[in-house]
Amino acid sequence: MPVITLTTDFGDADHYVACMKGVILQLAPEAHIVDVTHTIPPHDVVRGAFVLRQIFDYYPPGTIHVSVVDPGVGTSRRLIAASYDGQLVLAPDNGLVSLIHRDIALDELRAVANARLFRQEVSSTFHGRDVLAPVAGHLARGMALSNVGPMIEQLEILNLDPPAMLPNGGIEGQVLYVDHFGNLITNISEADVAAAMGPQPDLNVYVGPLRVGPLRTTYGDVNTGEIVALIGSTGMLEIAINQGNAASGLRASPGTIVIVR
Amino acid sequence: MPVITLTTDFGDADHYVACMKGVILQLAPEAHIVDVTHTIPPHDVVRGAFVLRQIFDYYPPGTIHVSVVDPGVGTSRRLIAASYDGQLVLAPDNGLVSLIHRDIALDELRAVANARLFRQEVSSTFHGRDVLAPVAGHLARGMALSNVGPMIEQLEILNLDPPAMLPNGGIEGQVLYVDHFGNLITNISEADVAAAMGPQPDLNVYVGPLRVGPLRTTYGDVNTGEIVALIGSTGMLEIAINQGNAASGLRASPGTIVIVR
Amino acid sequence: MPVITLTTDFGDADHYVACMKGVILQLAPEAHIVDVTHTIPPHDVVRGAFVLRQIFDYYPPGTIHVSVVDPGVGTSRRLIAASYDGQLVLAPDNGLVSLIHRDIALDELRAVANARLFRQEVSSTFHGRDVLAPVAGHLARGMALSNVGPMIEQLEILNLDPPAMLPNGGIEGQVLYVDHFGNLITNISEADVAAAMGPQPDLNVYVGPLRVGPLRTTYGDVNTGEIVALIGSTGMLEIAINQGNAASGLRASPGTIVIVR
Repeated sequence: MPVITLTTDFGDADHYVACMKGVILQLAPEAHIVDVTHTIPPHDVVRGAFVLRQIFDYYPPGTIHVSVVDPGVGTSRRLIAASYDGQLVLAPDNGLVSLIHRDIALDELRAVANARLFRQEVSSTFHGRDVLAPVAGHLARGMALSNVGPMIEQLEILNLDPPAMLPNGGIEGQVLYVDHFGNLITNISEADVAAAMGPQPDLNVYVGPLRVGPLRTTYGDVNTGEIVALIGSTGMLEIAINQGNAASGLRASPGTIVIVR
Repeated sequence: MPVITLTTDFGDADHYVACMKGVILQLAPEAHIVDVTHTIPPHDVVRGAFVLRQIFDYYPPGTIHVSVVDPGVGTSRRLIAASYDGQLVLAPDNGLVSLIHRDIALDELRAVANARLFRQEVSSTFHGRDVLAPVAGHLARGMALSNVGPMIEQLEILNLDPPAMLPNGGIEGQVLYVDHFGNLITNISEADVAAAMGPQPDLNVYVGPLRVGPLRTTYGDVNTGEIVALIGSTGMLEIAINQGNAASGLRASPGTIVIVR
Repeated sequence: MPVITLTTDFGDADHYVACMKGVILQLAPEAHIVDVTHTIPPHDVVRGAFVLRQIFDYYPPGTIHVSVVDPGVGTSRRLIAASYDGQLVLAPDNGLVSLIHRDIALDELRAVANARLFRQEVSSTFHGRDVLAPVAGHLARGMALSNVGPMIEQLEILNLDPPAMLPNGGIEGQVLYVDHFGNLITNISEADVAAAMGPQPDLNVYVGPLRVGPLRTTYGDVNTGEIVALIGSTGMLEIAINQGNAASGLRASPGTIVIVR
């Protein structure tokens, strides 16, 4: 039985997620359901896309990722089934797969359109429960992907600016994501830094106007309470405060400019 | 192996829920445990009853719903095992099953009283771990319900006012539940509206003194930031702000009067 | 397949926990993963140690407890595999096992050092994903503990003061943990009270200067909103407010002095 992951903005307090799980378990009692997170901020598709990208590399082939951050539920936006390198994403067609799509080879892309797979009554406001959960259940028990709906050619992709190479050889990006610890994860990758600067021992990282210092290896390379820049576990440039909260300490948030030079 | 759901006010930070799961898994290692939510506000039996009702229709026969919102733990309040249409609820007898009881046929009602099923030492303050979890574990591995305790005739039911028909043909209810998005879920069902008003194209929904407008189909039927009334995924009249938070925007909470006329 | 529990300070919002689960499930698809909690306050090893101790007695032999509260990640601190009475803890060597170590017999203690078990690339900042998760996965599918790394003799133990016997026969301890309900769990056990005072009908519990009254049995032994002292479900002296929040009501927190006399 494949793994089914759930990534939503439904929160942990309500019945919504448990309704989806019940629907899945009625169809696929042996499915292994993993909650990725349900506290994507409401309607924050960018954050959902980031989290989906981060988990993707760690799941086995055959995994079904059900992703519901869906401000357009009930409107004409489509639902899609997108297979990347043997893993499947079921999601509204609103850009949630953008970062996976950027990095991983697309195998197959279909609209989720076969109403015979849906719950008998489909609400206008909860397609996670009424459409995506039963489709995931059917797929988990072995139904072919081709039954989901017709192949389509296009899907929504978020317009996320890549970091910019500066004329003087530096690189300018921004904070993409603030994690639970207040660590600032940027859109500048280890490869971006290497491409821009080479193995430069005296490079400096700036958050806004603040000089953070060189690239280090781990949080504990600086004293408790001090700022540190490093390539984080996501493979991206990250700014942290050792055992502290960089987002509040530096008043930084998604969009804050980060420069390496 | 049946599904065992857990719905509690224990929060997500402490050891309480994991203790219950350990006890269950010692007895029924193959049980599929689903966390419904553990952030029912402490002692809020009404909210617990609402969540239980919402998930019930989506679970397969044989599911065991363990529900612990239990302000009376250790007092003389009973614990009950109530079977509805092939699913079982294990809970304190304080009204948690009220909304299921209102809507679904009761198969069998027993007191949880067979101390041989309990953990050897039963604390005065954590019957979820010491009584309900082991009973759920025994039932999950196939023990007959009759072993739980004697049949009983009565159980506590919450006194929840239904919506009132107004003399002029309208209907007056109230906000029953505010969800994670700030959506206001009322105690007025689609059937209530139909019974009171018929297929009336010009009906209007009011939250307190505020006129919200007619019934629409989905959030996106209004512009971002605008108020919308619709029949939500629970089958109840719901008031939302498209991509916003109606509870804070309208300063509404459980008990706020909602009128349709 | 054994149970694998996860106890971390990673929060519920990010990808971190789901990355660990994906790594485990790639190696041990049948593992039963239990989230204990991921909201240990960042870097709060004492709280992590408390939660681990609380769940330990309720899990079956063979359980693997993966615990990641790890302010020293990437520094020279070791990772350990410590087997207690047939259950295994995988954790950084920073005191997380202190309370289990105090109470339960140690079977075997090893450093986690066999890099062939780790993910191919080990980050400097996420050993939960790159080291402990794959080691847990290998162990779950039956690998012998001896493959993890060499036996070691010593491990870090937190310096947690036990309660003190007072010259006049009383006992002075402190609040060790505040739970989700605001209940104050102290470091004074039922046995401590019995040893210090015997079966004394007129003992009194004090929180700071406030006299709480005698030991009672359950929350409902006092009226709603009143303070009550009792031996809680952890086996420790606990101070609560019936259906209220003792931590905010009494302005108490970990470290607040509690006296019985």
